[in-house]
Amino acid sequence: MGKASTGPVPVVVMGLGFIGQEIARAAHASPELKLVGAVDSSPLLAGKKLGDLLGNPQISLKVAPRLADAVGKTKGAVLLHATGSRLPQVMEQLLEAAEHGMSVVSTCEELSFPFLKYPELAQKLERAAQKAGVALLGTGVNPGFVMDRLVAVAGQVCGPVRRAVASRVVDARTRREALQRKIGAGLTEAEFDALAEKDLIGHVGLLESAALCSVGLGLDCDDFEEELVPVIAEEDILGGAFPVRAGKVAGISQTAVGLEDGQERVRLELTIAVGAEEPGDRIHLDADPEVELLVKGGVAGDRATANVVVNAAPRVTAADAGLLTVLELPSGR
Amino acid sequence: MGKASTGPVPVVVMGLGFIGQEIARAAHASPELKLVGAVDSSPLLAGKKLGDLLGNPQISLKVAPRLADAVGKTKGAVLLHATGSRLPQVMEQLLEAAEHGMSVVSTCEELSFPFLKYPELAQKLERAAQKAGVALLGTGVNPGFVMDRLVAVAGQVCGPVRRAVASRVVDARTRREALQRKIGAGLTEAEFDALAEKDLIGHVGLLESAALCSVGLGLDCDDFEEELVPVIAEEDILGGAFPVRAGKVAGISQTAVGLEDGQERVRLELTIAVGAEEPGDRIHLDADPEVELLVKGGVAGDRATANVVVNAAPRVTAADAGLLTVLELPSGR
Repeated sequence: MGKASTGPVPVVVMGLGFIGQEIARAAHASPELKLVGAVDSSPLLAGKKLGDLLGNPQISLKVAPRLADAVGKTKGAVLLHATGSRLPQVMEQLLEAAEHGMSVVSTCEELSFPFLKYPELAQKLERAAQKAGVALLGTGVNPGFVMDRLVAVAGQVCGPVRRAVASRVVDARTRREALQRKIGAGLTEAEFDALAEKDLIGHVGLLESAALCSVGLGLDCDDFEEELVPVIAEEDILGGAFPVRAGKVAGISQTAVGLEDGQERVRLELTIAVGAEEPGDRIHLDADPEVELLVKGGVAGDRATANVVVNAAPRVTAADAGLLTVLELPSGR
Repeated sequence: MGKASTGPVPVVVMGLGFIGQEIARAAHASPELKLVGAVDSSPLLAGKKLGDLLGNPQISLKVAPRLADAVGKTKGAVLLHATGSRLPQVMEQLLEAAEHGMSVVSTCEELSFPFLKYPELAQKLERAAQKAGVALLGTGVNPGFVMDRLVAVAGQVCGPVRRAVASRVVDARTRREALQRKIGAGLTEAEFDALAEKDLIGHVGLLESAALCSVGLGLDCDDFEEELVPVIAEEDILGGAFPVRAGKVAGISQTAVGLEDGQERVRLELTIAVGAEEPGDRIHLDADPEVELLVKGGVAGDRATANVVVNAAPRVTAADAGLLTVLELPSGR
C-alpha cells in the first residue's frame, strides 16, 4: 500500500509568475502539503508578503530572493519550480535545489524528458540527484499529462501498439491574455514566421511528449521531428482579450512525430488558437484492442498544471533518487 | 528511467479458462515476457500441449497439473493467475506462488483491493509476500483499469475531488456466450432474484473499484455499499448468442458507492446487458477543474484484461515486495 505517510510534505515554491502563483495556491489548499517558503529573484516580488500576492491574507510567508533564505532549517522539503521552459535556463536552480537536499517537481517543459535534447545535462542532473538522494521531475498538463502520461496509461489495455495519435485543441479565448499573445494571436503571418525562424514562438515540450509516448508505450522510436505553422483567422474572431482580424494569426498548429525506421509510430497534434473549434483532448491507439479516449473540452490548462505539480510532490519524496519521468509516477494519490 | 531491464521476464500462466488462454497468447506475443510454463489442475487440460489449446503450434509447452511442475528450475518467474474471482478460493494458490519466490499478477477481482472485505487474508498475503520478497497484484480491466486506475490518473489534474462518478456500459452481444449467460440474459426476473439472493450473479470487484477510487483520489470514504438489479428487455433483443425475449432479463445493472460521513463521494455504475445502448466508459470528476473523460465504445473486455495483466508483469518484478494495488503501478511500460 505504498510507503507510510508521515504528515504533510513541506514544499517551497520558486518562481511566482502566473503558474507559480497557481501552484502556491494549490499547495496551500492541499492537505498533503505544507507550504513553508516562496522564492522569486525579481526585485518587484522579493520581500513582499506571499499572501498579498495570492490575495489570501491567511498566508503570512514572505517571498525570499534566494532559495537558501526560503528553505531555512526545513529538512526534506520539495521544491515546486516554475521559472522557465528551457532546461539550460534552469539548470543552476535545479542543481542548487539538489545541493539543499530537495527533491524537485518542475514545470520546466524540457525537463519532462531531458534525455532527448540534452543528454549531457540529463546525466549531470542524474548524478547530482543520486548524490543528494533526491528525485527530480518535470511535469505539468502538457507536457506531463494529456499528450504523454495519459497516452501511456491508456496503452496498458493494449497489446503491441502500432501507432499512437494524440491531439489537443485549446480555444485560447478561455485562457489568459498573456497566453493569447504568446501563441501569436493578432500577428501577421510574416511576423509569426520571423519569430518562428528564431525559435521565439511555439509550444515547448511537444517533442518531449512524443519521446515519453514512445517509451511509455514500449515503442522504439529512433527519430523525432517537429513542425510549427500559424493558424490564420478566416474571419474576425471576437471574444478573446483582443479581436483578431481575418487574415491575421489566430494561434499555433504544432505537430511532433516519433519515427521508428522511418515509419511514424507517434503523432502529436497541438492547436492553440483564439476561436479554435471543438476544443478537447483526444487519444487514439491503433492496437488490439483499439482505444479511443476523449477528454471533453480538454484538460483546463493553468489550474490543472498547478494540481499536477502539487499532486506529484508527495510521490517524488517516495520515489527512488534520480531523474524521473512522469511514466514512473504511480497512478493514484 | 526505472530499473535496468535484464531481458524478458519469465512467466507461468495458471488457469487456462477463456481469460487464461488470452493471457497465455498475449504473454507469448509480448517482447517483454517469456512464457516458460502453464498450469491447470483440470484433468481435461493437464498434460495437453498448450499450443494445441491456443491454436498456435509454435508453443510446445505442456500444461502441468501443479505449479511446481510448471516452474521447474526457472528463477524469478512471475505467475499470471486466472483461476477465480473470490479471494478465499485462490489464497492457497497465491501463497504457494510466494513460497516458490514468484511474484503474481492475478485476475482475481477481490485481490484488487483485499483490504476491504478480507483484512485478515490481506495481512496474511502481505506477510507472505514480504517474507518471500515478491509482489502480489490483482488487476484487469474492471476492476483494475477503467473504473479505478483510470479514475485515479484523471484525478491528477484536479484539486480536491468533491465527487467521482464512473460508468461503464457493455453491450454483452459483443462478448462471448458464457458472459451473456453469466449476467443472467434470458432468465426470468424471479430466477435472477433467486440467484442474486444467493450471491450467485453479479459482477465481482465493483466494491473493490470504489475503494480504489477513494484511495487513489485522496478521499476518505468510511463506508461502501453495493446494489444489483436486473436489466429487463423492453422488446425482443436479437444479435446475441441467443435471443432474449421482451420481459426477460437482459443483464445486470450494478452500483457501488463510497461514502464519507454519510455523503456520497464515489459512485460507480456498471451495466452489462445484451442490447445495452451507448456502450462506453465515462468518468466525471467534480473538482477544480472538472474532468470529463470518455472511452469511446468502452475498453474491450477480454483481450484488454489479458493485456493489462501482461503489461503489469514486468512492473511487479521492479516493485517493492508486498501486496500491491494498481494505484502503485507506474504510468508507462
